[in-house]
Amino acid sequence: MTLLQSWVESANSADTDFPLNNLPYGAFSTGGPRRCGVAIGAQILDVTALEAAGILTLENGPLLQAGDWNAVMSAGPTVWDALRGWLQTALAAGSGQQANLAPHLVDQANAQMHLPITVAEYTDFYAGKNHAVNVGTMFRGAENALPANWLSIPIGYNGRASSVVVSGTDVVRPNGQLKAPDAELPRFAPSARFDLELEMGAIVGQPSEGMVSVQEADDMIFGYVLLNDWSARDIQAWEYQPLGPFQAKATATSISPWIVTKAALEPFRTSTPERERPLLAYLTEPGPMLYDIDLEVGLTPSGKGESIIARTNYNQMYYSAAQQLCHHTTSGCAMRVGDLLGSGTISGPSKDSRGSMLELSWGGKEPLTLDSGDSRSFLEDGDRLTLRGAALGDGYRVGFGECTGKVLPAKPVPDWAQ
Amino acid sequence: MTLLQSWVESANSADTDFPLNNLPYGAFSTGGPRRCGVAIGAQILDVTALEAAGILTLENGPLLQAGDWNAVMSAGPTVWDALRGWLQTALAAGSGQQANLAPHLVDQANAQMHLPITVAEYTDFYAGKNHAVNVGTMFRGAENALPANWLSIPIGYNGRASSVVVSGTDVVRPNGQLKAPDAELPRFAPSARFDLELEMGAIVGQPSEGMVSVQEADDMIFGYVLLNDWSARDIQAWEYQPLGPFQAKATATSISPWIVTKAALEPFRTSTPERERPLLAYLTEPGPMLYDIDLEVGLTPSGKGESIIARTNYNQMYYSAAQQLCHHTTSGCAMRVGDLLGSGTISGPSKDSRGSMLELSWGGKEPLTLDSGDSRSFLEDGDRLTLRGAALGDGYRVGFGECTGKVLPAKPVPDWAQ
Repeated sequence: MTLLQSWVESANSADTDFPLNNLPYGAFSTGGPRRCGVAIGAQILDVTALEAAGILTLENGPLLQAGDWNAVMSAGPTVWDALRGWLQTALAAGSGQQANLAPHLVDQANAQMHLPITVAEYTDFYAGKNHAVNVGTMFRGAENALPANWLSIPIGYNGRASSVVVSGTDVVRPNGQLKAPDAELPRFAPSARFDLELEMGAIVGQPSEGMVSVQEADDMIFGYVLLNDWSARDIQAWEYQPLGPFQAKATATSISPWIVTKAALEPFRTSTPERERPLLAYLTEPGPMLYDIDLEVGLTPSGKGESIIARTNYNQMYYSAAQQLCHHTTSGCAMRVGDLLGSGTISGPSKDSRGSMLELSWGGKEPLTLDSGDSRSFLEDGDRLTLRGAALGDGYRVGFGECTGKVLPAKPVPDWAQ
Repeated sequence: MTLLQSWVESANSADTDFPLNNLPYGAFSTGGPRRCGVAIGAQILDVTALEAAGILTLENGPLLQAGDWNAVMSAGPTVWDALRGWLQTALAAGSGQQANLAPHLVDQANAQMHLPITVAEYTDFYAGKNHAVNVGTMFRGAENALPANWLSIPIGYNGRASSVVVSGTDVVRPNGQLKAPDAELPRFAPSARFDLELEMGAIVGQPSEGMVSVQEADDMIFGYVLLNDWSARDIQAWEYQPLGPFQAKATATSISPWIVTKAALEPFRTSTPERERPLLAYLTEPGPMLYDIDLEVGLTPSGKGESIIARTNYNQMYYSAAQQLCHHTTSGCAMRVGDLLGSGTISGPSKDSRGSMLELSWGGKEPLTLDSGDSRSFLEDGDRLTLRGAALGDGYRVGFGECTGKVLPAKPVPDWAQ
């Protein structure tokens, strides 16, 4: 496939994240209520307005008037295909719809973005092998780096849906219980090892009851976003035994505002890596279910320029989102429209491809030197983190835009907590 | 306080769970749509109908037409107090409202109960010390029984809200990955160590952003239910390192249908036990925030009589729900109306007061003999589990009713999963 031509000129570029090939879905406002929009070049097509005006009609609609994409997701894959087909025709160069649609384009620069979905529940996985080995080595030593179950189970834990925020939301450094290795008792103080996690998020667009196969799981996925699972490593180290991370991961999870659909990513499917231990039959993939998506992380200290601190690719994952979602249902756990699955931190094999400060600075022992000359072991107040990602086609890109957030200082510990 | 007299005769008994002193809130139906109801003796007062008829008016109402209690919770403590006050007056012996209300009473025997709230998110804690020591001893040995953080942190993990079901719902034994200690690889099969956990659930009735104090947390709690956190011990043992339980806890969590309000439990407040290690200041309780609630667990094998397998009390907890909720917010985690907090398994110090089969049969090494003569290490298909609880006053009880569920056989493992 090559770059598809649109009558929206800014979409006809090898550099835009949002050519006609992409058409990701978001929620935006321009002072008034939230609306559903489709990114095209530097613009947003206001599909809430198009539906209200009767220009766009969806089966069992209206589906776009609530200002999020949950109703479209609930409507199912037939509607997903119909909507994408309509948009690709109506926005194509030479379309007879240009005059109808042009008044409903909004400059992205003038729009405020919101969460594209109402998040039902949030599950975070641990499915990048390089990350698991790196963290395991630091926490438990090289001999015990990879837990015994890791090559058999896409390890996951339930996160906190109320903590999911859209890109652009500032993130306040958390307070929490910290215990120095040599201290007898913990203290309550701001996290000193606040970190990012570079992940992809898969959005569940169809519900399930009972166990589903990997293929059925793949069919349930609506699309993907960039995801930063902000993590307080010092809170985590003290709290996580025996029941896993809790407050260390509850401050914020940022996602990019545009859901890149599974249909847009279809040309970029790729297989998970060769298995180092045979998987149980239920986790076998019937085809390639990962995607070839280049990823990078930028860190911008307050008032300074940005440094790219990591470059990697989603194809580094050991388990796909479809495998994770299948495993999620094994116990009979019901899945719901709007569930969000974090992939786990995506780290490549080389030092400059690691998706967290914990790994990049090796637990703080090897601080990074930024382009600005600043040194970083973990995040400092004022730092802005920006994730970017794109699948690269022949003369075009299917991009995710940015997932960005700035670290604000911790709130003062209240008197009654001191 | 003594037994308050009502014109509903069945409420005027020392034996009923639902005297005028109690007035718990539930959701029910009798063939038609779900309605909000208040238990009184053997009856349910249909407050959805009363509100629709204009007999009951709540500030900023209507609040009872959706068939769950979320709108009342959102309305806040002033409305909570006003509603309880109105009900206690209108249902009292000699009330002038008797003629208006009597037509809106439904026999509990004729009603189907539903989840009383739309659950926002579900968090499960691990705050019973006897349980933590018992499980820790079995899993990690007596020397490492209590994790280092346990006396400082009300340990919790996020559960799965989609798995929460109302009492009476059958529970299908889960399939999952199991690995025998001497096996090299796991297999996919029905859990052979399926278990209950006797817990109380606290229902969060007000939202928060940022950290709240223990007192503010207590003020946010709407009421309490009985909670059975069904657990697959063999799935848990293989999956839980390093990020905690996942599919082992995702099959079902049953709650009793009646929310006993904080106001009804007020006479039964009691303090958490003496601290074995000083708590950090933020977790200090300004007053008694546990409750004296007698609890029991009944096990009924298919076609046999019931055995009471455990008797204990909610006052056995080391941390109160208010402390747990306060800790939950330390990282800045937003709490929402309808969040459900499981207390953690409630085990007393003696063998017959343990709140799980894992503890009662000591990991299967000491099977229980039931009154029917049957032997049990873990739950068998057809077993019915029933939790009961009540705070005992002077000649009256504030009861929770039952939280019951029957274990159904596992679904056959699909061909593609074998």
